[in-house]
Amino acid sequence: MADLRIDGHTRVIAHLGHPTHSFKAPLIYNPWFAASGTRAVVVPLDCPAGALDALLPPLMAAPNVLGALITMPHKVGVVRLLDEVSRTARVAGACNAVKRLPDGRLVGDMFDGEGFVRGVQRKGLALAGASALVVGSGGVGSAIAASLAAAGVAQLRLFDLNDDATQALSARLREAHPALRVQVGDRDPAGLDLVVNATPLGMEPGDALPLDVNRLDARTFVGEVVMRERITAFLAAAQARGCRVQVGTDMLFEQIPAYLEFFGLPVATPERLRELARLDTPQENTP
Amino acid sequence: MADLRIDGHTRVIAHLGHPTHSFKAPLIYNPWFAASGTRAVVVPLDCPAGALDALLPPLMAAPNVLGALITMPHKVGVVRLLDEVSRTARVAGACNAVKRLPDGRLVGDMFDGEGFVRGVQRKGLALAGASALVVGSGGVGSAIAASLAAAGVAQLRLFDLNDDATQALSARLREAHPALRVQVGDRDPAGLDLVVNATPLGMEPGDALPLDVNRLDARTFVGEVVMRERITAFLAAAQARGCRVQVGTDMLFEQIPAYLEFFGLPVATPERLRELARLDTPQENTP
Repeated sequence: MADLRIDGHTRVIAHLGHPTHSFKAPLIYNPWFAASGTRAVVVPLDCPAGALDALLPPLMAAPNVLGALITMPHKVGVVRLLDEVSRTARVAGACNAVKRLPDGRLVGDMFDGEGFVRGVQRKGLALAGASALVVGSGGVGSAIAASLAAAGVAQLRLFDLNDDATQALSARLREAHPALRVQVGDRDPAGLDLVVNATPLGMEPGDALPLDVNRLDARTFVGEVVMRERITAFLAAAQARGCRVQVGTDMLFEQIPAYLEFFGLPVATPERLRELARLDTPQENTP
Repeated sequence: MADLRIDGHTRVIAHLGHPTHSFKAPLIYNPWFAASGTRAVVVPLDCPAGALDALLPPLMAAPNVLGALITMPHKVGVVRLLDEVSRTARVAGACNAVKRLPDGRLVGDMFDGEGFVRGVQRKGLALAGASALVVGSGGVGSAIAASLAAAGVAQLRLFDLNDDATQALSARLREAHPALRVQVGDRDPAGLDLVVNATPLGMEPGDALPLDVNRLDARTFVGEVVMRERITAFLAAAQARGCRVQVGTDMLFEQIPAYLEFFGLPVATPERLRELARLDTPQENTP
């Protein structure tokens, strides 16, 4: 196990969010930086709601700060502090990565959806022309929908108990992807190529399932964003129906190569990142 | 060698200065935090002149930021951003450590002089009633003078080519320590108990010596702040005259226990810190 050495040449990636206790990124990036001899470190900075506007600009102006990982509650709010955002971030309405360009401008991107998409593609699911249902139109659901659209799905069904969130997401998707068929307000998974739980359902024991699993076809690929358990109740039900699945931490590990590219740092495969990661519970490291 | 683990429970000490390349603190504190299981990390943040005012307040407001180590060029400028400073920092006119109190106020202290004083005291030099010469009235010279005064020296001789700096330091010393005999403008070391080089002379090959070493008595204790070499030309000349000496890095290692106390973190001895430290050149670790 290579040791993380921090010295005066170390570049900093600030991990901004609140609360910090459940942050996983430092436990994934830093072992990779140590193993690869990359002079960089991910540092958690506790940034409560309302504190981002004062902190982000001076922090990002520090010459040895490469950028920031942005998480709850700032993924949406950070957008208006940036000079530029990627198309995916614009459609998602949120950013989870910020960097400073050589001219000082701040640019943001959103990799949650990218991680999800890379994961299912690497498991053999072809997305071009596919049909998908994303349950949950919050930050992560919007990001997944945006990345699925960018990956070429033909039909996207969106559902959230907060109908306003779904309508707003739908409008941004239609504007960026005029050829995409967007359908809102229905969470029937029957007959679709891909179904995703992007709600927090599954975080707490006894949570309801996000949709009617009895309507799942065996040929449908089922993805999950909840990381609390490797096989959530929803994934277990999908597997019982014969579906292939993607677990929550896959989205996490699959998006890190994209983040590393964004920051201009040496890139590792998701498998290598998992092997090195030092998450709190052993099961979290298991794909 | 214990490994430094950074996670969502890690508290951050920002090391603020510019440039960062020669920063030593991360290479001393972090191995101790790793060895002692202290959930804290010292992180270099490059903060050029003029950038501190915008960065320090929001950074220090982050709940998991314990405080900051302040170095060039901010040791003097940081004072006016603080709510409160110690007497030593007030006399020195500078701070190298800042922390946030539970009520949110920012307090500063200055440990360069404390480190120097602890070092010479632990080498057996009694300071109460002693006479001393400090050559150099910049940040570190002012800090050493302030700490020598606090440690009870009776007579303090100050010299700097910048006479204004010496006069200002002298005025602050006289105000805080009315019984102290302060003498300015003379750098004759003859007959004194302690003589200190607190100038940058010795940083570059071929630098002049800070004072006339032929006037050094064998009984005089000689200290150095330059860390470029363990035995600088000035210390070598003092040793040739029979003087006991203190090397530059002693000030660094001796002050760290004081810093750790200030931040409320587990304390190590200077010897233990040296043993664990991972400075760039092996000689820097040697006392």
